[in-house]
Amino acid sequence: MLAARLWARQRALPRRVGFSTAALPHTSLNPVTEQDVAHFSKFLAPNSIISTLSPNPCAPDELETYNNDWIGRFHGQSTTVLKPKTTQEVSEILKWCNDHRIAVVPQGGNTGLVGGSVPVNNELILSLANMNKVRSFDPISGILVADAGCILQSLTDYVAPHNHIMPVDLGAKGSCQIGGNVATNAGGLRLLRYGSLHGTVLGLEVVLPDGRILDQLTTLRKDNTGYDLKQLFIGAEGTLGVITGVSILTPPAPQASNNVILALPTFDNVLPLYQTVKRQLSEILSAFEFIDRTAYDLAVKHGQGRALSEEDTKGAECFVLVETSGGRREHDEEKLNDLLELLLSADKPLINTGVLSQSPAQFISLWALREGVTEAVSKEGKAYKYDISVPLSSFKEVVDNTREHLRSKGLLHDKAVKYVLGYGHVGDGNLHLNIVADAYLPEIENALEPYIYEVVAAHRGSISAEHGIGAMKTHALPYSKSAISIELMKKIKQVFDPRGIMNPGKVLE
Amino acid sequence: MLAARLWARQRALPRRVGFSTAALPHTSLNPVTEQDVAHFSKFLAPNSIISTLSPNPCAPDELETYNNDWIGRFHGQSTTVLKPKTTQEVSEILKWCNDHRIAVVPQGGNTGLVGGSVPVNNELILSLANMNKVRSFDPISGILVADAGCILQSLTDYVAPHNHIMPVDLGAKGSCQIGGNVATNAGGLRLLRYGSLHGTVLGLEVVLPDGRILDQLTTLRKDNTGYDLKQLFIGAEGTLGVITGVSILTPPAPQASNNVILALPTFDNVLPLYQTVKRQLSEILSAFEFIDRTAYDLAVKHGQGRALSEEDTKGAECFVLVETSGGRREHDEEKLNDLLELLLSADKPLINTGVLSQSPAQFISLWALREGVTEAVSKEGKAYKYDISVPLSSFKEVVDNTREHLRSKGLLHDKAVKYVLGYGHVGDGNLHLNIVADAYLPEIENALEPYIYEVVAAHRGSISAEHGIGAMKTHALPYSKSAISIELMKKIKQVFDPRGIMNPGKVLE
Repeated sequence: MLAARLWARQRALPRRVGFSTAALPHTSLNPVTEQDVAHFSKFLAPNSIISTLSPNPCAPDELETYNNDWIGRFHGQSTTVLKPKTTQEVSEILKWCNDHRIAVVPQGGNTGLVGGSVPVNNELILSLANMNKVRSFDPISGILVADAGCILQSLTDYVAPHNHIMPVDLGAKGSCQIGGNVATNAGGLRLLRYGSLHGTVLGLEVVLPDGRILDQLTTLRKDNTGYDLKQLFIGAEGTLGVITGVSILTPPAPQASNNVILALPTFDNVLPLYQTVKRQLSEILSAFEFIDRTAYDLAVKHGQGRALSEEDTKGAECFVLVETSGGRREHDEEKLNDLLELLLSADKPLINTGVLSQSPAQFISLWALREGVTEAVSKEGKAYKYDISVPLSSFKEVVDNTREHLRSKGLLHDKAVKYVLGYGHVGDGNLHLNIVADAYLPEIENALEPYIYEVVAAHRGSISAEHGIGAMKTHALPYSKSAISIELMKKIKQVFDPRGIMNPGKVLE
Repeated sequence: MLAARLWARQRALPRRVGFSTAALPHTSLNPVTEQDVAHFSKFLAPNSIISTLSPNPCAPDELETYNNDWIGRFHGQSTTVLKPKTTQEVSEILKWCNDHRIAVVPQGGNTGLVGGSVPVNNELILSLANMNKVRSFDPISGILVADAGCILQSLTDYVAPHNHIMPVDLGAKGSCQIGGNVATNAGGLRLLRYGSLHGTVLGLEVVLPDGRILDQLTTLRKDNTGYDLKQLFIGAEGTLGVITGVSILTPPAPQASNNVILALPTFDNVLPLYQTVKRQLSEILSAFEFIDRTAYDLAVKHGQGRALSEEDTKGAECFVLVETSGGRREHDEEKLNDLLELLLSADKPLINTGVLSQSPAQFISLWALREGVTEAVSKEGKAYKYDISVPLSSFKEVVDNTREHLRSKGLLHDKAVKYVLGYGHVGDGNLHLNIVADAYLPEIENALEPYIYEVVAAHRGSISAEHGIGAMKTHALPYSKSAISIELMKKIKQVFDPRGIMNPGKVLE
């Protein structure tokens, strides 16, 4: 929460024309006043304003879900939430805020993990929840154009009858909004197959901080006319403007899905296995998930299914979950069966054993082993979660070295760190490193940071593969990005948001 | 070539510190002098300098291939070509040029179609041809890191033994370089399947105009740490910096490819057919190419194969070429055969007939029908070629309306326009609209422009789906991009290249 400390409230500061906020960020930002709320009520419906400052003030607890993130780590003190219904209303809000130097936090489903969508102080919250209409869908091209506030699951449901799926899928799909997905460059389970949002988002409608509408909401798969500005907003976490509309390519729905869990005698076999699986399953491979022994045992302990017998798992150092999604069930099953046969009949088998799901129920129960790790960890203690990208070959080394590092600090015991475990998306190079402790303790945090960030930097990895920077990791950005990169980011911020009103304290310090 | 007119050579202009080149672009750029060449010879090998100004001046015709584009439409008057061998050398060249306000044109294989890689005047040409080493390839992840000057075909050959392919494929693959592919955001035949370079490029190494090296050459599939700056260089056509290294995700090679040509009674069937084909072939569909009747007849007339008998094609208004690429030949053939059966047994068939290739030779001969259109057109006369994106449903309307427009101007006859035809990538919404004339005539050009650009703008399409803007279409950019977009592009140009030395007269006027 370093950003909060930097942000002094100096309402009385005279407004200087042409004043560079880059030199002295946020010092001239103003809180929302009753006059501001009165202005907003001129063009917003009464139910689009939730404010303790309005003529009909709301109870402070009505603002709670907007001011706090869902993991309970980040807390803002905003007095006012606006829920515009049109792009034009967003434009008028931002124009006023820019003119009056009022900071604005755009908020989607507020499901982020790094505090990007709640105020660090008393910024105005601009919720996109009321902008939730599908604008168009072309079943032939699969191109969907939707308001930013559409919930991901609703969009999935919308395209399903047309035999299409959304290219992005997340645990939070029931609450997260497509605009927030784009603003945070959400990854998720389908990235291996369908690629990142930088490839699948075709166009955006964005309201710039000064209220102007940047309309790049095209439905073109190919357009080589100048710099691809929309890319800057993908992953900018609302610091450059407010995304109000999204045009996105939805892939045809697969006709069949299968999965198999494999027990491996040693981690060294994971990468040769990945290579074999990729070659055998080719275009139908849709997930290749790694679970280390500690993570597997915790998932089983907390009842997340038991697909393999104890005999099967004896001597297994880690596990891999493989999923296929294809156009015809019998072809996919044949490919999967042939793969298993090849693996088991090898002279030096890469796997001890493997179990192929035989029914939809088994399919779900295999996935539960992987997806249940999160819940098992939360039942076991307090978790420090790191979402990092490192080379595939280093997954085990990073987990083991972290455990040894904690042991060397005398912190690996029942009253401190109980488990260090790893799981994640091998196909994406994305490791979820979890440190499960008896309680959150400063000495554990000090032992973990900057240690883990330094390990990531030494591997030229990413300190945030999926979750973003938000308010949580601004101080750690230099571990993944060079000084020149950060300098250029700041200049780009200055181009789009010279007064620094957009989501201050996020992404850039 | 409007840009060339704007660019006055004013060597004598005093150098003003902090002078904004945005206000008065390029007026303070200097030509290369003998002193500059003497400086370059201090750190470049003798064979890295080709200049009429050096102590050992080259013959002017040695510069011809660098000063002229391959279609013979754009001609520069550069005196000096530098061919650095390392990123450090590129850095030293740019630092000197920036300090001395010498304009620089980065040049890859010089295979572009819009004059983006040749000087509009006497800029220094920086050829990447000597930076042609693969830096690393990881056969497990499929991530390739290569110098920008590597030729696309060499990279294809490099990854082939590892069972991988490049995600981009072009007719010019024998000459074009990966750095140029990225700088122009090349599309090509594999885009439908593997997506655009915005998704497959994982990292870039770029030398900024001031000589600093922006190292974002990561090999991470996922990295959510701040603005994705590399995206700006993809499609910037060398106007923001020089790409010196590329990290790119190469997909596993398909094990089998098949194709089929279909004759359709009416254009109205193309889109329902596309929908059916997508559903039936799902993840193995790798191309869906449209050829109108005029284009087909020209291809056949000029000997580009004859896959269908005259009987088969009688009454066909257009043709579609479908390609599959999959992991197992027998599965793919079964899917294709079932598709054909489904299509032919329908109550109201969408197709008149279809021919499935039965051998590698037939596979090539079916593709020759589609790829031979270009050659047939060039044998038939002088072609005006437009590479546009419009909605799939408008392909025929755009071609027909253009023909009628020319007819209404009295230009549709043997001595003016002979054919108006369309073909292209239905899957990408990319139509190649060709107007074949007896000779290039001003009245034809006046009838076509801005007419076609206005049609594109009315469809919210792109005036350049694949080829880029270069020097050729800077004046037409407003047909595809709003005033706000262009203003922001200019500000971004100013951030990266405040002195305007990078490829002046390209992309932005």
